Amino acid sequence: MGLIGSSLARVIRKNKIAERIVAIDQDAEVCNTVHKLGLADEITQSVVEGVKDSDFVLIAIPVRSIPRVIEKCLPHLMPEAVLTDAGSVKGPVFEKVKNLGKRGAQIIPGHPVAGTENSGPESGFAELFENRWCILTPHENASIGAIEKVTAFWEASGSKVEIMDVSHHDKILGITSHLPHMIAFAIVNTANNLREDLRREVMQYSASGFRDFTRIASENPDMWLDIFLDNKTEILDVLQRFKSDLSLLENALLEEDGKTLWNIMNDSRKIREGLIALGQHL
Amino acid sequence: MGLIGSSLARVIRKNKIAERIVAIDQDAEVCNTVHKLGLADEITQSVVEGVKDSDFVLIAIPVRSIPRVIEKCLPHLMPEAVLTDAGSVKGPVFEKVKNLGKRGAQIIPGHPVAGTENSGPESGFAELFENRWCILTPHENASIGAIEKVTAFWEASGSKVEIMDVSHHDKILGITSHLPHMIAFAIVNTANNLREDLRREVMQYSASGFRDFTRIASENPDMWLDIFLDNKTEILDVLQRFKSDLSLLENALLEEDGKTLWNIMNDSRKIREGLIALGQHL
Repeated sequence: MGLIGSSLARVIRKNKIAERIVAIDQDAEVCNTVHKLGLADEITQSVVEGVKDSDFVLIAIPVRSIPRVIEKCLPHLMPEAVLTDAGSVKGPVFEKVKNLGKRGAQIIPGHPVAGTENSGPESGFAELFENRWCILTPHENASIGAIEKVTAFWEASGSKVEIMDVSHHDKILGITSHLPHMIAFAIVNTANNLREDLRREVMQYSASGFRDFTRIASENPDMWLDIFLDNKTEILDVLQRFKSDLSLLENALLEEDGKTLWNIMNDSRKIREGLIALGQHL
Repeated sequence: MGLIGSSLARVIRKNKIAERIVAIDQDAEVCNTVHKLGLADEITQSVVEGVKDSDFVLIAIPVRSIPRVIEKCLPHLMPEAVLTDAGSVKGPVFEKVKNLGKRGAQIIPGHPVAGTENSGPESGFAELFENRWCILTPHENASIGAIEKVTAFWEASGSKVEIMDVSHHDKILGITSHLPHMIAFAIVNTANNLREDLRREVMQYSASGFRDFTRIASENPDMWLDIFLDNKTEILDVLQRFKSDLSLLENALLEEDGKTLWNIMNDSRKIREGLIALGQHL
């Protein structure tokens, strides 16, 4: 019941997507907060207890814990139940659970491309998924009915839904989300390693640019550790391309090659224009 | 009369900081827009015409053009006039003009640490400088009166003012602004160099992280070319530190060293917490 789970609880209630919401969190304090915020009809620390007789289960936890929790859920679900998740990397989870679905409930992996730097049940809000994409990566044996059910759920939450190949998803997200986070963690770490007096001034006079990086680098390290490890290959691959592009800029600056610098900067505006045209810039 | 100049015109009028505003821009179209927006009492394309009889001149143009414009202004100013600028790098300009001040008007270099990704006179707004720092880097021979005049101007515009050594300013801003921009240009360029189909999808499913980088990398390339060239040494120096910090993360990921990855990510939250404590996170 972090940012994603608590936002879903809010939008489910607001848009009347489900008759009944059961919130599950292993942390008693989180359960208390969820209770105080009135986000669910039932709140429990037990996965087995929580998913019993559910027909729709959504798992929003760090990606490396997803397979274990899916295995725990499966025996207790209704036969026609659909199980999905909100993990930012899909390959390894998909591999581990692809044969589990046959035992009854259908597993439809999903990824809402939405979020903020905040975590915990207080940080959620019903509008988080509005106009954002949710990418589903179902197995080829998944039933059309189950895919439609998950699609309808995300559309009711305000999202647009796309079906994508698992490895393609992980490549795209490696570029648009995972590498930018790794870079943000690196540059904020550079500031962190400065002499104490310089470090204080860097914070004091923090300008646009660095300020945005600190926001990105303030996201939950537990969540990001799992993402980095699960999408290691794609991230390291796109990191090599990034390093070579950075060297291009570095060498142009060393040689005071203004034409190359200007052209690279001017080209990079096109991507922004593309985002604006697609309504994905905010 | 871009983002900075037009925001200043707006706040000067709003807070009644000056009796009369003369806007100067070499571009006739910009002058037309400034006229339509009613931002100034007088609008001209001629520097000489515009600064005649002024007692306070602020130059907000790409940094490498500042010395030339200062030289052009000086003979036409009132004897007690104060001249300042809004450049993001201070060293080279400071060096070039440090002896010019003696000829009459006082030159007090300044840098409002404020901005957005937008440029042009339409993009300005009166609140741009509110609660932001403006750093002044006066020469040791500058008069207290002139420094006080520029300080009062920025405080009236909503800023907090700090006096700083020139080279120290350029080091700090190299870390907090210039390097982050260089990195943003590099990663957006990485996306730009992808195969056309991948590139389209990267824009389509643009996530938090990349989206912020595209915003940073959409800033005016003319302005940034000058900044990079003028602060070359500091930027290349901090770039080496960044590359070494990125290698640390890369190697930890290669070796799946979760402990190191987690510690770096957790440490980087401290900088964000420092920014929030200083009210510089928004």
